[in-house]
Amino acid sequence: MCQLLAMSANTPTDIRFSFAALRLRGGQVGPHRDGFGLGLYRSQGLMCFHDDAAASDSEIAQLLQQLPLKAMVAIGHIRQANVGEVNLANTHPFVREWRGQQWCFAHNGQLSHSEQLAQGFYQAVGTTDSERAFCWLLSQLRSQVQHEQQFWPTLVSGCRRLSAMGVFNMMLSNGDDLYAFCGSQLHSLTRQAPFGRAQLRDCDLQIDFQQHTLPTDLVTILATEPLTADEQWQALPVATLQWWRQGQLMRSQSVAQ
Amino acid sequence: MCQLLAMSANTPTDIRFSFAALRLRGGQVGPHRDGFGLGLYRSQGLMCFHDDAAASDSEIAQLLQQLPLKAMVAIGHIRQANVGEVNLANTHPFVREWRGQQWCFAHNGQLSHSEQLAQGFYQAVGTTDSERAFCWLLSQLRSQVQHEQQFWPTLVSGCRRLSAMGVFNMMLSNGDDLYAFCGSQLHSLTRQAPFGRAQLRDCDLQIDFQQHTLPTDLVTILATEPLTADEQWQALPVATLQWWRQGQLMRSQSVAQ
Repeated sequence: MCQLLAMSANTPTDIRFSFAALRLRGGQVGPHRDGFGLGLYRSQGLMCFHDDAAASDSEIAQLLQQLPLKAMVAIGHIRQANVGEVNLANTHPFVREWRGQQWCFAHNGQLSHSEQLAQGFYQAVGTTDSERAFCWLLSQLRSQVQHEQQFWPTLVSGCRRLSAMGVFNMMLSNGDDLYAFCGSQLHSLTRQAPFGRAQLRDCDLQIDFQQHTLPTDLVTILATEPLTADEQWQALPVATLQWWRQGQLMRSQSVAQ
Repeated sequence: MCQLLAMSANTPTDIRFSFAALRLRGGQVGPHRDGFGLGLYRSQGLMCFHDDAAASDSEIAQLLQQLPLKAMVAIGHIRQANVGEVNLANTHPFVREWRGQQWCFAHNGQLSHSEQLAQGFYQAVGTTDSERAFCWLLSQLRSQVQHEQQFWPTLVSGCRRLSAMGVFNMMLSNGDDLYAFCGSQLHSLTRQAPFGRAQLRDCDLQIDFQQHTLPTDLVTILATEPLTADEQWQALPVATLQWWRQGQLMRSQSVAQ
């Protein structure tokens, strides 16, 4: 199994504090040693970093930790391989273009018989169940969404089908919207004024958000497990799809069958 | 106008020596200050780095310079914006998936009326003539190539059409094959045993390839302008498409009309 991280914010926000926690779990305090990835959107542009080394050891991850890379939306992932060998092509997040936007996807869980998911417009490059699920899901959206109102129900029904195949927690974004599906485990935390201090759970790293924010900032972090020890993380209800935009929850729907 | 860099090798090869030269031209000794990108293939996986800062200043480029990232195929680009503003979405190389492979594309030149290129399967995310040309070209390949033998003639005719629209030099790869089209200016250099020393043209950086190679290594570098002062770079004939694989020239064809 893997671990997920995502951010939705109303202002370009530095993801490094949260990424530091994810990195530790990528090999040091957690077993997710089989690669990592971090996608950062700046308006419609996407910077996506991948490495098949453990995030805790990866020189790329180490270097990212030094860069003040701000984003409105971010998706991160550390991998513990179950389906598909450890290599670059199997490293999340996966990216495909649809409607002139870069769609970025990361998955935590394991799906049975994912090879039975018909590959339509999009085909997997690697051999993971996760990338196959993404290609199937985005192909469904591409072929079935003619009008904007069809997007949400198509995504809901896609997540319902995928979660029936096994453990399916995922993050999906086009740079504006962040869609999070909780099949078994996902937590969220929204930070807003008055901002305070936070302490990472896995190491002795603290931050005083008041020194890095404006009163209007709104930042939501989603993660498989809570990343900080002293903030009120919310467990997402199981079998629920959420849509976040600019740090704000726009919509939440149970897809229970 | 921009500058291009590409590599095709029969063994994972460190691109940093050539990238150092490209970086200098990206703002320091050249005017190409409007972003840079570097795509590195490891088998079917692609690591792609982008920044809209000048390559000579970019912290990402600086960090890349420290990493011993080896690749069999690489495509690099430094941008001097003419069409499309300076932002991440307009930064080469551009990437799209076709047939379960990541296709990576970079362009040097300027095309007139690129908005008239029909966007088919693939749509541009940014606003450059280059990305429109790539989306059109890959859509053409996708819709017209049913059998492997149709690939080359379809690519030839696509390059012919694009080069009729202005200045068109490009690099295209799927991780195995590297296609280089010279519309006006492109140079190549193949390094093989006996390996010797080389000195960059733009700064006092030398390398002794004998210390970094095996006798069987075969590495071809393509670049807009020669990168080293003391090696025999070949100017590609104008209006020519070349196919490189594992450092070796597989095919070369004039597309003159």
